[in-house]
Amino acid sequence: MKNLTIGVDVGGTNIKLGLVDSSGKIRDRSFLETKSYSSDKGKLISALADAVLNLLGKNKLTQADVLGVGLGLPGLIDPVRGIVHVLPNIPGWHNVPIKALLEKKTGIPTFIENDVNLITLGEWKFGIGQGCQNLVCITLGTGVGGGLILNNALYRGEGFVAGEIGHMPLNEKGPVCPCGGWGCFERYVGNQTLLAKARKTFKNKNMGIQDVFALANQGHSQALAFWEETATRIGNALVGVVNLLNPRMIIIGGGVANNFKYMGKTIEKIIQQRAMKVQAKMVKIVQARLIDDAGLIGAQVLVQEALGIKS
Amino acid sequence: MKNLTIGVDVGGTNIKLGLVDSSGKIRDRSFLETKSYSSDKGKLISALADAVLNLLGKNKLTQADVLGVGLGLPGLIDPVRGIVHVLPNIPGWHNVPIKALLEKKTGIPTFIENDVNLITLGEWKFGIGQGCQNLVCITLGTGVGGGLILNNALYRGEGFVAGEIGHMPLNEKGPVCPCGGWGCFERYVGNQTLLAKARKTFKNKNMGIQDVFALANQGHSQALAFWEETATRIGNALVGVVNLLNPRMIIIGGGVANNFKYMGKTIEKIIQQRAMKVQAKMVKIVQARLIDDAGLIGAQVLVQEALGIKS
Repeated sequence: MKNLTIGVDVGGTNIKLGLVDSSGKIRDRSFLETKSYSSDKGKLISALADAVLNLLGKNKLTQADVLGVGLGLPGLIDPVRGIVHVLPNIPGWHNVPIKALLEKKTGIPTFIENDVNLITLGEWKFGIGQGCQNLVCITLGTGVGGGLILNNALYRGEGFVAGEIGHMPLNEKGPVCPCGGWGCFERYVGNQTLLAKARKTFKNKNMGIQDVFALANQGHSQALAFWEETATRIGNALVGVVNLLNPRMIIIGGGVANNFKYMGKTIEKIIQQRAMKVQAKMVKIVQARLIDDAGLIGAQVLVQEALGIKS
Repeated sequence: MKNLTIGVDVGGTNIKLGLVDSSGKIRDRSFLETKSYSSDKGKLISALADAVLNLLGKNKLTQADVLGVGLGLPGLIDPVRGIVHVLPNIPGWHNVPIKALLEKKTGIPTFIENDVNLITLGEWKFGIGQGCQNLVCITLGTGVGGGLILNNALYRGEGFVAGEIGHMPLNEKGPVCPCGGWGCFERYVGNQTLLAKARKTFKNKNMGIQDVFALANQGHSQALAFWEETATRIGNALVGVVNLLNPRMIIIGGGVANNFKYMGKTIEKIIQQRAMKVQAKMVKIVQARLIDDAGLIGAQVLVQEALGIKS
């Protein structure tokens, strides 16, 4: 049984847990509401530890039956020292040694990683990216995140903050971004921007992004044009990534990627037109496969890689 | 004596050879004129092999006294199979198995690499980048090249063409580039563009880029503004690289980098203003140190890495 991992995917709203086996299959799950603990990080950590132990107990397992806990966190973390620097959407978390705190409470080796990196690891080993040595994973949502597999390993960067595709500038001049920069890719295709644009385009204050998707499904020309324009922006941003990193694959995930069927061809077209020929020829643009489970499954990969176990 | 390498740096005009020791010191040198052989690649390869053997003989060495030959080439190559796909500035080179051809003629293990990657290897192990695990090296000249050291190794990409920083777009709309794209960084700061701009700015058809440098040295305000604007462009291009790769260092080399003292602070300022805080805080922008010898010295690193010898 020593091939199991407990994956924990901490989001701003929910915390998902999964008991994952070495084939990337989720055998059991549980959930916590992040908000119930937002004012007290000590309580949240205790609740996390309890949830991990409960998931074990429910499956008639003990600590010795799992390789470890893999924890995905939405923010700046130090995976080597096991410290959370800051979680932008969960107040009060500054320099928390969560690895040590959880290990003390659960007695299980614990590894932490940025949530987008976990998704990337999941897609790489058990999703659409299997067998790829060099790939880029982007998540399109409220923010635009990115993870990099380079030379057959997760590339974290000097301070573990590599992959910020959402903050690559699309133009020398452009809208100011909360990151302090301007013209960032995220400012053109983040959910808030798309929502505002949808409401303006369709003159409907209650319009949601999924409504534009539904209209596109009905063949509505303005809705199709909306996704075409969004895809053009995404393609423009990826040209630089393709020329710089020469990846085999770019995986597109996150909520907006549900509209991949209206965007995939346009993204591909822009890259074929605008990127260098050799790079363009060898890159595949694909939709993420594991969707909501990518983080939990990536936790299995994280733990195995950290322990030096070949998957 | 088994710590010597012969470095060969093939350029469009000259071919430089160097006998390099394991401390990165060039003990002896020789030269060939590329143009004398441009119409006959067979003759060029024979001349290269002769030059390698002559450099050995001149130093009273035999094939057994060197670890190998490291060859830097200005074009698309396959370092694993030892094949030159194409050299844009040297006609007639298509799918040439140069590694095998040279090994047959010299009897010395030969390794090939893209020229900018060799410069990057040189600066990493023996230049300004010593000790860095994650760095980006850019060369500013007729073209704008780039090399990447990521996770303490040269990152080549899926088809060995990673690092094309010169072809990362600066804007969604911009001047057409010979690569087939548009708005590429190189189109804003490549030598041809800078030369045309200098001649227009100073209303002098014979103006050279070094003249703008000389004027800046005299405190000429238009010349200082010229370099400031160029540096702003470079900074804008590097913001995306910094956010994506979170490097420890960006090394700026190539001819234009001779004007680093007029550009360094502005590049730094743009990155501090526009890149994400964590990434900006940990990246150093520095001038290349090995200048014209970087490729030859990098050949020593290439050969040692290929043979698994720690430097």
